[in-house]
Amino acid sequence: MKIGGHAYRTIWPEDDGARVAIIDQTKLPHRFEVVHLTTVDEAARAILTMQVRGAPLIGVTAAYGVALAMRVDASDEALAAAVAFLAKQRPTAVNLRWALEEMRRHLAPLEPGKRADAAFAHAGLLADQDVAMCKAIGEHGLQIIHEIAARKKPGEAVNVLTHCNAGWLACVDWGTATSPMYQAHDAGIALHVWVDETRPRNQGAALTAFELGSHGVPHTLIVDNAGGHLMQRGAVDLVIVGTDRVTASGDVANKIGTYLKALAAKDTGVPFYVALPQSTIDWTLEDGFVIPIEERSGDEVLRLSGRTADGAVHLFDIAPEGCVAANPAFDVTPARLVTGFITERGICAASRAGLLALYPERDAAA
Amino acid sequence: MKIGGHAYRTIWPEDDGARVAIIDQTKLPHRFEVVHLTTVDEAARAILTMQVRGAPLIGVTAAYGVALAMRVDASDEALAAAVAFLAKQRPTAVNLRWALEEMRRHLAPLEPGKRADAAFAHAGLLADQDVAMCKAIGEHGLQIIHEIAARKKPGEAVNVLTHCNAGWLACVDWGTATSPMYQAHDAGIALHVWVDETRPRNQGAALTAFELGSHGVPHTLIVDNAGGHLMQRGAVDLVIVGTDRVTASGDVANKIGTYLKALAAKDTGVPFYVALPQSTIDWTLEDGFVIPIEERSGDEVLRLSGRTADGAVHLFDIAPEGCVAANPAFDVTPARLVTGFITERGICAASRAGLLALYPERDAAA
Repeated sequence: MKIGGHAYRTIWPEDDGARVAIIDQTKLPHRFEVVHLTTVDEAARAILTMQVRGAPLIGVTAAYGVALAMRVDASDEALAAAVAFLAKQRPTAVNLRWALEEMRRHLAPLEPGKRADAAFAHAGLLADQDVAMCKAIGEHGLQIIHEIAARKKPGEAVNVLTHCNAGWLACVDWGTATSPMYQAHDAGIALHVWVDETRPRNQGAALTAFELGSHGVPHTLIVDNAGGHLMQRGAVDLVIVGTDRVTASGDVANKIGTYLKALAAKDTGVPFYVALPQSTIDWTLEDGFVIPIEERSGDEVLRLSGRTADGAVHLFDIAPEGCVAANPAFDVTPARLVTGFITERGICAASRAGLLALYPERDAAA
Repeated sequence: MKIGGHAYRTIWPEDDGARVAIIDQTKLPHRFEVVHLTTVDEAARAILTMQVRGAPLIGVTAAYGVALAMRVDASDEALAAAVAFLAKQRPTAVNLRWALEEMRRHLAPLEPGKRADAAFAHAGLLADQDVAMCKAIGEHGLQIIHEIAARKKPGEAVNVLTHCNAGWLACVDWGTATSPMYQAHDAGIALHVWVDETRPRNQGAALTAFELGSHGVPHTLIVDNAGGHLMQRGAVDLVIVGTDRVTASGDVANKIGTYLKALAAKDTGVPFYVALPQSTIDWTLEDGFVIPIEERSGDEVLRLSGRTADGAVHLFDIAPEGCVAANPAFDVTPARLVTGFITERGICAASRAGLLALYPERDAAA
């Protein structure tokens, strides 16, 4: 999507074949900085420190991380080590493990001398596939927005609420949850997005507001507490969020707080959709409540990044000195609260039957 | 309650009879500062800018505001003007209107020359009544905590979650929602409090964490998004919140985000109690959804107060430049989501019948 009129992806290999460029998302929204990854350690660090975040982008970054490792040592041992090292950076993200397995499966049969070039090419293919998948998700989600827009009075906007950033900054382009919004906006549908700030890391305030604003999509920032009230008052037509992992029965692990919005949507009759590429589905799990939930540092709750009036960016403490904080990073929304999934193959119910209707090859595999 | 070993109330008249001391709560948790109100304008400003906040403290501050007005001009016109002026500072707070009506009713029959001293005395009486009411609320709420503690294994703490600050800083002493917690802690019950930070103004992080910490009650700060997850995982035994207004049918207007916690409590089977003094009950209203919801400045969402490593306190921006924010300050939790009310007279169901059982004189009045 566009920033300052220039079309970007979130990750791309430089022509020298030795560096991979990313947008440092920890600097947003205050500064737009492109940084280069040159080693597998730098790729792992970019994932761990959330310079890149979002399930699809984490997967593609890990794939390029394997490619960077292969440039140094393309032995079987180095391949296994790179895959294992990258996999442990974010335990909740199934897409990370999927992308790494995809790289391993592709590279393992090759002779070591061919692995580095093949790894870069395959990481690039995964990136292109992600763009195509996100575009398809948007096309399917656009139908839902079209139907709501058709019931509106002339000039009335369709109001979508989203949590966290399942935007193009979380993917390679388009985004998952945002793809229907970008496509609706580009198609001339009057659309307005309520953006949850998404404490503690403020991905909504820092990233979703930034990317929607950069692309020209009307939006309003709200605190995470406000969405239920807005739904009660009829100000939300539709919720669309992303996910880090969906189980085979349709339970949804996503950014902490998603569950609360799903409860409010159910209580107020607002449709609640989850947008996802198929790589996010964990067919090995039924019950979402066995998904390990990453417990991040309490410092992320106690300390925020912001800019003062002079434009300088600082870390600030917002709690009393000595205060202790807990920071579970994800929660699980039970399938019963989800209206449907928007995938690259279409829209389905949040259930095993719904998912199998879109992915029948999984039924044969069972 | 105690700060640095010294027992404070949140508001007190100085011996000179011309000044009223308050704790400037906008400076917390970074600085503890006592400031003096000397005019009705200063009292109104303290309410508007939230140097004082919380339904009971707003009421008592308004009462002292009337007293300060009477020192300057004790005419009928000045009394009416002071009451009208103070009432409009926070439209959602029924307690503000209650305290002002109480002052007007008490002062109007007196001859002007006696009104100033009588106003100070009556404001002091309202403060003392609030302390007694909060203490009684705590004694009733303590029973609930006792019952949960009795089912725990030895050494296991009772985990209470609270939203915003219905603490002693919101009252004159004890607090409403916190009063059962302080009394349980003081009685030696192992108690741990999950403190919602309560965006956008962070009253949980700034005030509740501060006052619980000052009094020595174990607590952990969490983002507002985390409570649902903690309830799903069995980490919350009980929710207790305060309220700005309760309707005669039991609907609860409270800080934005309360509704989301009530939904999660209902979904997970966690008891959800609202602590309130009777002055918070608006017997003239049935349906909570007609309560006017204060829409505050979006700047409160975009800009936060925090301290840098050198201890300096700044305002800092967390969203992209030019970002627009909406800021509804309260939401309404339907009575069906509330396990019960904890009032100074006891515990009752969140319904007209429940409230009338505790306040039968209201039935006679109807």
